[in-house]
Formats: sequence, structure tokens, C-alpha cells
Amino acid sequence: MGGVRFPAALRQRAAGVRLLALDSDGTLTDRGMCWDDAGLETRRFDVRDGLAMQWAVRAGLPVVVVSGRLSRAAGHRFADLEIPDYQGAQDKVAVLERLCAEQRLESRQVAFLGDDLPDLPALRWCGLPLAVADAHRLVRAASLWCTPSPGGHGAAREAIEAVLEATGLWNKVLERYGGSP
Amino acid sequence: MGGVRFPAALRQRAAGVRLLALDSDGTLTDRGMCWDDAGLETRRFDVRDGLAMQWAVRAGLPVVVVSGRLSRAAGHRFADLEIPDYQGAQDKVAVLERLCAEQRLESRQVAFLGDDLPDLPALRWCGLPLAVADAHRLVRAASLWCTPSPGGHGAAREAIEAVLEATGLWNKVLERYGGSP
Amino acid sequence: MGGVRFPAALRQRAAGVRLLALDSDGTLTDRGMCWDDAGLETRRFDVRDGLAMQWAVRAGLPVVVVSGRLSRAAGHRFADLEIPDYQGAQDKVAVLERLCAEQRLESRQVAFLGDDLPDLPALRWCGLPLAVADAHRLVRAASLWCTPSPGGHGAAREAIEAVLEATGLWNKVLERYGGSP
Amino acid sequence: MGGVRFPAALRQRAAGVRLLALDSDGTLTDRGMCWDDAGLETRRFDVRDGLAMQWAVRAGLPVVVVSGRLSRAAGHRFADLEIPDYQGAQDKVAVLERLCAEQRLESRQVAFLGDDLPDLPALRWCGLPLAVADAHRLVRAASLWCTPSPGGHGAAREAIEAVLEATGLWNKVLERYGGSP
Repeated sequence: MGGVRFPAALRQRAAGVRLLALDSDGTLTDRGMCWDDAGLETRRFDVRDGLAMQWAVRAGLPVVVVSGRLSRAAGHRFADLEIPDYQGAQDKVAVLERLCAEQRLESRQVAFLGDDLPDLPALRWCGLPLAVADAHRLVRAASLWCTPSPGGHGAAREAIEAVLEATGLWNKVLERYGGSP
Repeated sequence: MGGVRFPAALRQRAAGVRLLALDSDGTLTDRGMCWDDAGLETRRFDVRDGLAMQWAVRAGLPVVVVSGRLSRAAGHRFADLEIPDYQGAQDKVAVLERLCAEQRLESRQVAFLGDDLPDLPALRWCGLPLAVADAHRLVRAASLWCTPSPGGHGAAREAIEAVLEATGLWNKVLERYGGSP
Repeated sequence: MGGVRFPAALRQRAAGVRLLALDSDGTLTDRGMCWDDAGLETRRFDVRDGLAMQWAVRAGLPVVVVSGRLSRAAGHRFADLEIPDYQGAQDKVAVLERLCAEQRLESRQVAFLGDDLPDLPALRWCGLPLAVADAHRLVRAASLWCTPSPGGHGAAREAIEAVLEATGLWNKVLERYGGSP
Repeated sequence: MGGVRFPAALRQRAAGVRLLALDSDGTLTDRGMCWDDAGLETRRFDVRDGLAMQWAVRAGLPVVVVSGRLSRAAGHRFADLEIPDYQGAQDKVAVLERLCAEQRLESRQVAFLGDDLPDLPALRWCGLPLAVADAHRLVRAASLWCTPSPGGHGAAREAIEAVLEATGLWNKVLERYGGSP
């Protein structure tokens, strides 16, 4: 893992990204939904995804989660990362349009990473539609790039590194850890 | 994942399916049963399986879970999906026969997806016996089709998409997300 | 999975097995030990392993768990299966010798399935030493047979099916589900 | 798994190791961070990693965990193993230098096993930088050796066995289980 870059044909488009939106279930998780006898749900996230979300924000690239389901478990994770989450979004495009209006962005400046059919409208709407490695066939078909790793196992990390690299922010992240080797 | 269809020889049979019955442990889960120190059990389900179960119901194809074990954890999941579950079914065929009588269906109109030996009688009884990719050898032998994905990792999703496609209901699902590409 | 048999050279030895002893962590689990913020542990077991343990007992082949660690979580699982468990066994051979004395068995009538170095003395002592697919190299070297599946993902199920088949009890299990196809 | 040794060119360097430091998330875990509805976190560890950590300590090689995040769940695991953990270490090198001063060691006598960019400074500082199989590309590049197994699935076990073997302590471990075969 690591060192993933967009192909040359995509880099210019990716360089213009000013907002990175991520689906949650199947994108930041490996699709697993755990329930216990008491009805409590658990979600599993990837530590490297979270780290990259924080890097992006500190480097100046806002990251948001836009998810169709409401999960308190996921909410705790996003609060811990201090990443804004829009859960229970029946219309993901509406959420993204509102965010764009607030931040004076256009849809072409938004990257969206998703995995399943409910992500299709947002993928068709945004400027840089991205899919996790194990996304549904129709989601991959609607995306310009697929991460090498599946959802919940580093897909978001790879997408974020690739966007940071294309936008020229990746070296800022590396400096924090002693710079490029 | 996605785009899975029945082979031509099975499509006519699948087109007649009016009830889809699913085993739980090993079919909707990856066979994992988690226990904590306090004796609480946890089950892991796949978000895409659940979404497809809801699509099927909304498109007019009833889905039920028929499981040999009683699991409160699984019960919470099925309640969340609003899918009827018949847990603790020592005789799965008896449950299915009762459902058929209530819904005026014949066994040939029922598809059953399972993974292990307790599913054999239901698979032999129903019209469209299906097995998950990692089903027991004897279960695969008793089935007409195996899903590409293993239990708990999209097997039910694939079976549901294939049945919806064969029954002509798949496009109804796609319309919800902006139609076929 | 399924249909696993011992090679011809092992079948006579396996036919004499009258007690099947299983390690827990790494053999009945995939080596995972989960801890939460409150200090509660969780263990993950395989539903098919548990089913086979119950089949063996009902068919007349006693099954016991002999484990070096004490885990209340695992204890709940074994209680649910009604399988005797000897946890916290610093000397697994001593436990097995006591069981043999009680049941008037000899060590050559005992099969042991393990995965790691603490299982070595029991494997060297018993008549049918078995290792899970992902056992430590020295454990595999000390065993006469390795299961195709790794620990916690069906290894115990395969070992039990193979022993039941060699002891002539497998058909008794199949009869319960409608007999051999 | 098992029987992993350092290549000849590394054995002399490894023979001088007197302190083994391990990262936690992604190294002792498979990067998974689980959250439940109540905000409780869970971490998954590998039973064989923990066993090896205890072997090393008993054989005379101190083991410590140096982690950037604070996790009470992980703390319970390390307390159970009686392994000192330095969590929430924003500067891992500072922690290691303090430990070296206390134990009158030099950085060349320290091995560090890590997986992600926050481990880079410690890897560049220590005498034996090691990476898990699924480490980030830049971490692998900064390490002299990669474990065959990924983090949380035996990577630490392999690193510890290799260090114990190079330092001549491995036979001491084997004697506990009846000696070398």
C-alpha cells in the first residue's frame, strides 16, 4: 500500500478538487454491520483511512462523510476524527449541493468515493467520481478511477493520498514525518 | 461484484420465483459467532445484502429468513430491515410449507439460499435451490447455482440481484438510482 | 468445504479414535482476541465447527476443549454447545491423561487438533495429532495431518468430519438431514 | 507460519538487539478500529503475537509498545500481557530515547516494528527497522526487513521469533514445549 497516484489523464481534473466526500458503509467500512443481543450496532473502520482524513483537513482539503444510513457507531468515529458527517442522507446530491453553495464550490471541484448503487447519483454529479476496489459493477462503471484496496481496508486512504498528491499537498503531509525519503 | 445473472438454463425457473427464503448463519453471515465475557453474542451482516433484501420487498418479491438457531442479535438486524424471520426452525421445510399455504404458493415458486447440511431438506424441497460460494460440498451438490461470493460477504446480494433480474424486477430497482447507465 | 477425508495411510489410526480434543485460541478461533474500552474480551467462533462438535457427541464420539488460556467469552460458547472445556490448562497432557483414565482410554485413541507451540506436548502424546492449515511450522511438523481450512474458519469442522468418516459415524450424521445424496 | 529467520546480512545486526519496540494500530492489529453505538471502541489482537511478546520478556528480551493513539481497549490487552505500553506518544523517538537512557542502551540496540508514516522517525532512528507485510510503501522502504504476515495477523510474532533466533534465545523458548523436534 502507498504510492498510489492517478493516471496522467486524471491528474489535472484531480488537481482541481477542493472537497472530498466519502460514503460510509462499504467505503469506510468493509460492509460489515455487527449487531449484538442487546441491539447495539458496531462498525469497523481502518486506522489508516482516519489518519489520512485528518491529514487532508490539516493540509487544507476539507473532507466530509455523506451516508444514507444513520449509525450512532459511525458518528462516534467521525466525531473522534473531527470530520463532519451527513448521515441519513436520502439524497446525497442535495447534501453536496448545499455544501458547495456554502463553500462557494462547483460540482466539478468535488471528489466522491463510493461503493454501491445509492452512490450513483452523487458519482454522476461530482467532478471526480471514485470507486472502492470491491464496488458494485455499476458503481465502478460510473467512476473514473478505482482504488486498489477494497472498502474499509484502505480504499479511502488511497483515494486521499492520490488527491493530495495531485493537488500538491502530499509533501506537506510527508514533512510532518521527516520529509520525503 | 454486481451484474451476476443466472445461466440461460435456469432463468425460466428463476422467473417463476415468488418467495425468496434465506438461511442466516453462514449465508447472511460469514459463519462467525462472537461471544463476549458477559455471554452476549454478536453477528456480522453485510450492508449490501440488507439493501438488496429491502429492494426485493419493495419491488414485490417477498424475502424471509428461515434459520435453525435462535439469535437475538440476528433478530435485531432483521427487525431493522423489516424482514420476517423464522428463527429456531428445527424443520425449515415445515416453515416454508406453512408460508406457501398462507401465500398460496407452490414449492417450485420458492428460492432458498443456504450453506450447510441443515439446509439440505429445504434445498431439496424448493424450486430454486441456491448455495453460497463457500457452502458445504453436499449443499453445493444439492443446489442448481452457487453465488460467486461467500456467505456474509455479498452472497445474498448476488442471489437477490439474479432473481430480480430473472423476474424482470431489476430495472425497477435501478430506476430508484437514476436508471440503467 | 466438505468431503475431506484422511489419506488411506491414516484411516485405520483414525478409526480407533474415541476422544477428540481441541485447542481453543487459533484452532476454534482465527487467533483474534478482541478487547473493548471496558476490558471485556470477545472471541469469534465458526458456526460450522460448533455444529460438527454437537454431531460428534450425538454420534457417540466425545469432544472436549483443552485450552491454555482462561476465557469467559469462550466458556459461554462451549456452555452453549454443551461441550466440556478445560481452560487454563498449563499442562494439556495432564488434562488428557486424567480424561483417559476416567474414560478408560489410551492415548492412542485420542485425536488432538492444535495450532501453536503450547499444543506440541499434547500432539506428541496423542495417537492422532492434527494441525490447522495455518498452524505454526513446528506444529504442522508434529502432526500427521493438516486441515485444509485455517483455525476458526472450519478447521475443526474438517477434522471432525474426517474422524467421523473414518470411525464410520458420518452416515449417522447425514441421516439426520435426509441421508447421503 | 513459523521458522522465519533474518537473512544472513541482517543476523549480526539483529543479534545485538536488546529492546524490541512495537507500534500498536496496524502492527499489533489489522488496522481495524471498531466503535459501537455507545461510543465504546474495540481492538482485535492476535493470540500468537501476545504469546511471543511474553516469551521474549521471559527469555530476557524486553518488549514495549509505543503508540501514537491512546486506546483504553489496547491498554487492557497490554496489561493482560504485562507488557509496558507508551500510548499517545506524539514523539515516538523521544519515548525510545528515554527508555534507552533508563536501560543504558544505544539506538542501534533497538528494533522497531511499524506499519505507517507516524512510525518513520522511529524506524530511521533505531538499529533494526522492521515493517509488517502490509506496511505503507514508505515504511517498507525505510525498513531493513518485512515480516511475511500482515499486521495483526502474526507480523509481530514473526519479528519476535526472528529476533529471538538471531539473539540465540529461541531455543530457550522451545525448551518450554519439549525442545526442538
